[in-house]
Amino acid sequence: MLHYPARPKGKVRLMKVKVGINGYGTIGKRVADAVAAQSDMEIVGVTKTRPSVEAIQAWEKGYPLYVAKRSSLELFDEAGIRVEGTLEDLLQKVDIMIDCSPGKVGATYKPLYEKEGVKAIFQGGEKADVAEVSFNAYANYQKAWGSSFVRVVSCNTTALVRTLYPLHSEIGVEEVQAVMIRRAADPWDSSKGPINAIEPSLKLPSHHGPDVQTVIPDINIYTTAVKVPTTIMHLHSVIVKLSKDSTDEDILSLWERFPRIAFASGSLGIKSTARVMEMARDMLRPRGDMYETVLWRDGVKVMGGRTLYYYQAVHQESDVVPENVDAIRAMFQLMEKEESIETTDRTLGIGWKIV
Amino acid sequence: MLHYPARPKGKVRLMKVKVGINGYGTIGKRVADAVAAQSDMEIVGVTKTRPSVEAIQAWEKGYPLYVAKRSSLELFDEAGIRVEGTLEDLLQKVDIMIDCSPGKVGATYKPLYEKEGVKAIFQGGEKADVAEVSFNAYANYQKAWGSSFVRVVSCNTTALVRTLYPLHSEIGVEEVQAVMIRRAADPWDSSKGPINAIEPSLKLPSHHGPDVQTVIPDINIYTTAVKVPTTIMHLHSVIVKLSKDSTDEDILSLWERFPRIAFASGSLGIKSTARVMEMARDMLRPRGDMYETVLWRDGVKVMGGRTLYYYQAVHQESDVVPENVDAIRAMFQLMEKEESIETTDRTLGIGWKIV
Amino acid sequence: MLHYPARPKGKVRLMKVKVGINGYGTIGKRVADAVAAQSDMEIVGVTKTRPSVEAIQAWEKGYPLYVAKRSSLELFDEAGIRVEGTLEDLLQKVDIMIDCSPGKVGATYKPLYEKEGVKAIFQGGEKADVAEVSFNAYANYQKAWGSSFVRVVSCNTTALVRTLYPLHSEIGVEEVQAVMIRRAADPWDSSKGPINAIEPSLKLPSHHGPDVQTVIPDINIYTTAVKVPTTIMHLHSVIVKLSKDSTDEDILSLWERFPRIAFASGSLGIKSTARVMEMARDMLRPRGDMYETVLWRDGVKVMGGRTLYYYQAVHQESDVVPENVDAIRAMFQLMEKEESIETTDRTLGIGWKIV
Amino acid sequence: MLHYPARPKGKVRLMKVKVGINGYGTIGKRVADAVAAQSDMEIVGVTKTRPSVEAIQAWEKGYPLYVAKRSSLELFDEAGIRVEGTLEDLLQKVDIMIDCSPGKVGATYKPLYEKEGVKAIFQGGEKADVAEVSFNAYANYQKAWGSSFVRVVSCNTTALVRTLYPLHSEIGVEEVQAVMIRRAADPWDSSKGPINAIEPSLKLPSHHGPDVQTVIPDINIYTTAVKVPTTIMHLHSVIVKLSKDSTDEDILSLWERFPRIAFASGSLGIKSTARVMEMARDMLRPRGDMYETVLWRDGVKVMGGRTLYYYQAVHQESDVVPENVDAIRAMFQLMEKEESIETTDRTLGIGWKIV
Repeated sequence: MLHYPARPKGKVRLMKVKVGINGYGTIGKRVADAVAAQSDMEIVGVTKTRPSVEAIQAWEKGYPLYVAKRSSLELFDEAGIRVEGTLEDLLQKVDIMIDCSPGKVGATYKPLYEKEGVKAIFQGGEKADVAEVSFNAYANYQKAWGSSFVRVVSCNTTALVRTLYPLHSEIGVEEVQAVMIRRAADPWDSSKGPINAIEPSLKLPSHHGPDVQTVIPDINIYTTAVKVPTTIMHLHSVIVKLSKDSTDEDILSLWERFPRIAFASGSLGIKSTARVMEMARDMLRPRGDMYETVLWRDGVKVMGGRTLYYYQAVHQESDVVPENVDAIRAMFQLMEKEESIETTDRTLGIGWKIV
Repeated sequence: MLHYPARPKGKVRLMKVKVGINGYGTIGKRVADAVAAQSDMEIVGVTKTRPSVEAIQAWEKGYPLYVAKRSSLELFDEAGIRVEGTLEDLLQKVDIMIDCSPGKVGATYKPLYEKEGVKAIFQGGEKADVAEVSFNAYANYQKAWGSSFVRVVSCNTTALVRTLYPLHSEIGVEEVQAVMIRRAADPWDSSKGPINAIEPSLKLPSHHGPDVQTVIPDINIYTTAVKVPTTIMHLHSVIVKLSKDSTDEDILSLWERFPRIAFASGSLGIKSTARVMEMARDMLRPRGDMYETVLWRDGVKVMGGRTLYYYQAVHQESDVVPENVDAIRAMFQLMEKEESIETTDRTLGIGWKIV
Repeated sequence: MLHYPARPKGKVRLMKVKVGINGYGTIGKRVADAVAAQSDMEIVGVTKTRPSVEAIQAWEKGYPLYVAKRSSLELFDEAGIRVEGTLEDLLQKVDIMIDCSPGKVGATYKPLYEKEGVKAIFQGGEKADVAEVSFNAYANYQKAWGSSFVRVVSCNTTALVRTLYPLHSEIGVEEVQAVMIRRAADPWDSSKGPINAIEPSLKLPSHHGPDVQTVIPDINIYTTAVKVPTTIMHLHSVIVKLSKDSTDEDILSLWERFPRIAFASGSLGIKSTARVMEMARDMLRPRGDMYETVLWRDGVKVMGGRTLYYYQAVHQESDVVPENVDAIRAMFQLMEKEESIETTDRTLGIGWKIV
Repeated sequence: MLHYPARPKGKVRLMKVKVGINGYGTIGKRVADAVAAQSDMEIVGVTKTRPSVEAIQAWEKGYPLYVAKRSSLELFDEAGIRVEGTLEDLLQKVDIMIDCSPGKVGATYKPLYEKEGVKAIFQGGEKADVAEVSFNAYANYQKAWGSSFVRVVSCNTTALVRTLYPLHSEIGVEEVQAVMIRRAADPWDSSKGPINAIEPSLKLPSHHGPDVQTVIPDINIYTTAVKVPTTIMHLHSVIVKLSKDSTDEDILSLWERFPRIAFASGSLGIKSTARVMEMARDMLRPRGDMYETVLWRDGVKVMGGRTLYYYQAVHQESDVVPENVDAIRAMFQLMEKEESIETTDRTLGIGWKIV
């Protein structure tokens, strides 16, 4: 039930991939813990821009701390927080840097990574052209095999790809219409609103559809998005026109073969995103994280044989974490797709089947 | 700019329709004020179940107060609030009762209305079969002509019908997919949540689609719905497959002919439902109400000639108010459709064209 | 019941004070309407920094529009919004400028006002030393008599002064402890959080206590403050050590003599700030504003004869509006204190006694 | 850093106290895990009223499941959830029942516990007279020594007692004024509001002050309370008049001797209750729980030598968990106060000193 920080037994490689995290924040700290839980990779350092409790916690976990910018060294010194060096120093020690900078900032570091001859993974806040491949383990693991620069797509795109890829590859998808009802800020971030409003993304269609196409190029998808006053999860309302007549059971049994899709039931009390997150807390997941895309079993319905409706809940802080681990393996050709996914899932406890 | 309580000039009829309100709450108090602003109808009494500030305010406005249940007389007496009689007494004095009871409760009063030979309007919380016609002024005014029992459809259905009816009747609609992002409680109601969650309506499709079909029977519409932590407005994300190739301008100029559809622009700062409501406040609308369905001009987009995307904001407390007034006129054959709508709109100040 | 924009009858002065509003935003637009409702002053222009719906609405109300900065002229031109001139042009036409700039910005305009020989009122976001007097109509109207620069204290300070001044001047106050539970953003502002957190003001005591002392210098007051996820009202929890034994009734009957203090009753359903604002909406107040500081009659309690507890609700958008109007009168020596307050209250509809 | 479910080494007793949980909900599931983490007690069963995900999760953790009411057996059967028996069956197997029923319901079970000769702990939602002692480990551990019925006081009272007891016993307290800014619902509970309002507790003073006196009888304390739209923590603003002149450092160093009081610093980014909870998540605490009462180091201030101001954050879901464990030890005379507290803290990871 509780998976961190147990390391997987057996299959220990002599040489571990040395991983650095540039930006030990919401995504960075989670990827660090997930990497540390693998036997074929290790964290050799993390960076932070400003002194903070998270910087202190990095040391407590045994992650050497580096400053992203030399100019910040003094700030850390004043705050009494030990620093091992700068990002440049860290780059000398790593095989790969997981760039977890804020959106659009990651790309500004790419020249530095290239100069130092270090591979890098970027997150979904960067544009697709920052990398050779926009990555999702289910959909295109092989495409990242041996790559130097990979972009793990955003939380929303990851969730969409997870449920659409099986439909697309095994049943056929004519058209997807998805509405993203987005959390407005992460739980820790009390600066952002709205407190009491809904904000539509007026740019139509929203960028999520094209972003899915960076992973599944030939899928026909249109998306819209609204921002709502919640912090814990996104929720997607998805409509898929299927190429073949299918039943609810066909769809459910297809998805059940993919452990990064999990199921909740309204009939057992899981009626909101808050109850989905409570399940993760009760599973004693680290940080109460929900790596899986969660679907409501009683919220999946095929109408007229070919129109599929479903809702999915997306934990924006953590669903990309296992994808980052798998991307490392593909880039260093450590394991084949199935073995990597299975290993990542086992170490992180992914694949529960409560309901 | 400010319309209440000015009465329209001229065309004063000798006999006014005598209107009672059963349930002087969120909808009831608004319909009362709107009826009082017309020259061809008048409020002769309103009912309340429990003593409250609203009961006192009814008297201050000159609306005689009746108790819905005789057993509550004592409560009002204790609270020192004068009561004119009971619902039965009020029924002797009215030509029509606007039933603004909570959902499903309205239908329980129907036998009483029938017994007393009083016409009645029910609200959208009742099932369609409570009435002869499910009403929207644009879509089927004539169908309520002379009727005894009419149901004004819910706030969400009213908003959908307003924008879909012109498309359906003038361009042709193949299919509608709409997601209702619903406010969870009215502004005054601090008992209901969620505070920090999204709740999907697991029943698929949601009831809104079939409800639109009670007004526009031959429209092909599927809806889903989620509840979010906001109190001020619903927001709809709508996708319409049109029967004919159309441009953004075609659609906008069609809708501009219907004053109960209004437009906001993100480019002028109206980026959220909160800013939409702020416009209503700044227009000095009574209670800051927004009777119109509000579309974002820069959030309307036709893709590939025939797929129309748009967002609309819906003020759940007030958008059915003008529909109730028009329904009274149709039921008593007071005015033809266009005259009634024009009169209602003029008295309520509907039809602003700021942006 | 509805007061805007009726002008008071009689007592019309031949010369009206010419008023400009620098910053037609949350406070500015409300002060403009309140000034326009008086017979002894008039709005000759308002400024806006950026094109917006509010700029258009200013014209619709008949308030000539000026740009705060010449560099913005082009932006307005592009947006098709007519502009009468710049702030400098407006300064040639006014007797007084009501500065409603964002906090700390107002002071930067003071040299310009001084240079043009124009009186000015600043708002509570400025430091006290921006003006000769920090103003509240009840507490120190006379002190602003003939002044050139006056600061109307903030919404929170205004509310505290309103209820503390009567206690201080008529009963005597040994010590005040007040906790401000502050709304985090205004209703229209969807950019600010928190969505789900409480933020304490770590600077202790908070600035509110010293700010009360700018109006009532010899009062012994300590305050703390927290920010909570709501947009509609602040709420204060206040404890006052009185100099004399008093009963609940003594306190209530004292406060009842001050119309800018109003009362709500939990026993009549007013159990939250949301219900307080709903009362203002139902009174058809413009923008649903509540100019009064609202106390819960059943939330006022004297313990042990000398320790008074009470809660008060504060509408941050509007409670300073009548104070601005009175400040103008004092600065131009138009009316004595009681006449000004009575006139302002009558024109704005202040002084309801529902419950 | 991660403590569940490691069992403390050594000191294993031959006979463990057999513990049942009546009500496996928010508090019950946490107490179950904490009891299971001790070497001198064990969980022999938990009860649930209705089938739910939590019922399934109880089995997954190895906690035998019982139904609270025989009449619910069928519901569990229909849901396919195995049940070991009824509450009556469980009572035959336990030495003590931790009653975690909803407020006021616990007392209705007391006759049954008495009849079966089983000791019981009640939670703070029950009235004080349900038990022989209202318990807090710091303040009155010894008073529960050998008792049959103990009440662990509520989350708010526990937090107040933790910080006031040291002040009261070591410095002396003349008077306490505390305002509870209360979370309105737990994170999983999406049914309750308010969404956008503040609700004052009109009963003055609030019940929290007298409840503190059930633990520290001779303390002079007055409290008020408001409910705000947040789910994660309560926050208290406390003012204490001390009996002796003291400095900020005196107070901080006193509190630092009590590990169930922890400290956060605004200067290191912990500016809200959301950031406090994020620290607990990052410590990989089970469910992200924060058992400690958290004070802002830079939000503690003594004014004029004897008036102490501070804010404290209270995790309503978990701060009573260690108190329940200690109460069991006192009731069965397993360990002396210091040993029990130290053991509980060690097993639960209490006592971090990050900042």
